[in-house]
Amino acid sequence: MDLESVKKSLEKGNETASLVDELPFRFLEPLITSSLKVDHIEPGRVVCSMKIPPRLIKHGNSLHGGATAALVDVVGCTAICSLGHPPLSTGVSVEINVSYMDAAYVDEEIEIEARALRVGKAVAVVSVEFKKKKTGEVLAQGRHTKYIPLASKM
Amino acid sequence: MDLESVKKSLEKGNETASLVDELPFRFLEPLITSSLKVDHIEPGRVVCSMKIPPRLIKHGNSLHGGATAALVDVVGCTAICSLGHPPLSTGVSVEINVSYMDAAYVDEEIEIEARALRVGKAVAVVSVEFKKKKTGEVLAQGRHTKYIPLASKM
Amino acid sequence: MDLESVKKSLEKGNETASLVDELPFRFLEPLITSSLKVDHIEPGRVVCSMKIPPRLIKHGNSLHGGATAALVDVVGCTAICSLGHPPLSTGVSVEINVSYMDAAYVDEEIEIEARALRVGKAVAVVSVEFKKKKTGEVLAQGRHTKYIPLASKM
Amino acid sequence: MDLESVKKSLEKGNETASLVDELPFRFLEPLITSSLKVDHIEPGRVVCSMKIPPRLIKHGNSLHGGATAALVDVVGCTAICSLGHPPLSTGVSVEINVSYMDAAYVDEEIEIEARALRVGKAVAVVSVEFKKKKTGEVLAQGRHTKYIPLASKM
Repeated sequence: MDLESVKKSLEKGNETASLVDELPFRFLEPLITSSLKVDHIEPGRVVCSMKIPPRLIKHGNSLHGGATAALVDVVGCTAICSLGHPPLSTGVSVEINVSYMDAAYVDEEIEIEARALRVGKAVAVVSVEFKKKKTGEVLAQGRHTKYIPLASKM
Repeated sequence: MDLESVKKSLEKGNETASLVDELPFRFLEPLITSSLKVDHIEPGRVVCSMKIPPRLIKHGNSLHGGATAALVDVVGCTAICSLGHPPLSTGVSVEINVSYMDAAYVDEEIEIEARALRVGKAVAVVSVEFKKKKTGEVLAQGRHTKYIPLASKM
Repeated sequence: MDLESVKKSLEKGNETASLVDELPFRFLEPLITSSLKVDHIEPGRVVCSMKIPPRLIKHGNSLHGGATAALVDVVGCTAICSLGHPPLSTGVSVEINVSYMDAAYVDEEIEIEARALRVGKAVAVVSVEFKKKKTGEVLAQGRHTKYIPLASKM
Repeated sequence: MDLESVKKSLEKGNETASLVDELPFRFLEPLITSSLKVDHIEPGRVVCSMKIPPRLIKHGNSLHGGATAALVDVVGCTAICSLGHPPLSTGVSVEINVSYMDAAYVDEEIEIEARALRVGKAVAVVSVEFKKKKTGEVLAQGRHTKYIPLASKM
């Protein structure tokens, strides 16, 4: 791919700018979570399911890796909240990582399980695992680390 | 936060389902890249700038961590493409990680630099750094590792 | 800490150079594993225990973070081997990460569980979790990604 | 590899237990750093060189991935110290990650550069890059995140 084509591919999002400009504030989170259903919730553990929606796929029709990473962020936070932390005091993200193991295609049912490994006085760590509902096969595993400044003052 | 509220917070994206359902296929990538400008491109290195758009922020009005992670994915790929790989043969994501160091607020100008550390016969690794344009301060640093199956057969 | 003291602290390992120079080739791995006992092994899953030995601790008398990372490497590999891969064809490391959640002190008993999340034709991913034996509390969680060049040719 | 052989491979470190048991307390760090020379140091940046010693290699005679990870830990800390933090107040490790890109063989000269990306009131992040001295090629890149509890009280 020549340099000019790479540049164009990266700026082609600009073409949809008119559509995108009409979108409301803080649109990423509803876009990511609009197909989530919470199947189970208990302190420190949240299990969701999602049927991969067309808007979250990339070329090749599988779930966009950026969407998976954003879900590690968002679903991971709720596992901290589920321990009683108010949503605005779940802190700031320190690190997010994701390993991708398999693709999930449009309309496929997946399960997302977030498990708080540790919620200390200042640092919280959550593990988030993505599985195919049909086979139980692991699609992706991520971790989300947060720093909780409010809690550390208590 | 009680468990029922956590559940509701995660499913509140469903409320925007009607808006979201009208969105085109593969909408995440244009949403993420619609404000990107490519400032500089050379083989193995891509530098972009972005004015943080309202749609990519979260509560607190700073760039959503999920957007940062998605940008590590998308901008990271172009650094591989810039070495001559066709876009569909830049492989599949193996791992993405991001460390968050500071917040960038709505309308703030940031710079994103992707640097291919290594593009081997089968594995490619790209480092992606986010800085405040005004101060040069590092906001986030991530890495994107891909497996390139086509190239490995050549 | 002034710059000269930082330099000295980093080079103080040189003082033990005479002791270290007599050590055999490939000494790191036996040093790390000399206290490991395998409690359980099945295809794709290895559970070990270790009483933290004095030689692997750091200032403060807790397990050195570098030892934990090396254990993610070494124990993680055996979970791939346990699926039938010969040891020299478990590939090369692509990425290792570890989140640290709590300290384990000298003489404390810990459990290390490695679980192969995915062993594909070319990429293998293993999750490695460290727990306190007494309480079951998670000390650390890591992931090890390998590229398997031999297997990919089969 | 059959399960019994995997178990034996992991416990073969026990054979060297008699040698290892005579080693002093906190031996990992001097083992890792005994060949390090500090080439350059300034606030927030430390550059070292190392000739790969036989004791830190693994099968195949290249630097052990666990040694690389331990060096990200140890050298990374000094970049924080170099900003004036006393060594015991550089905090506790929160996360360490390393991407491996190429092998470095016994007696090869490598350069290790640690760069503090951010040292905030409570969280510090350091990037550590490993290069071949001869060619400048990147061997590995890691990141070390620490939580600094003392500093946060100042």
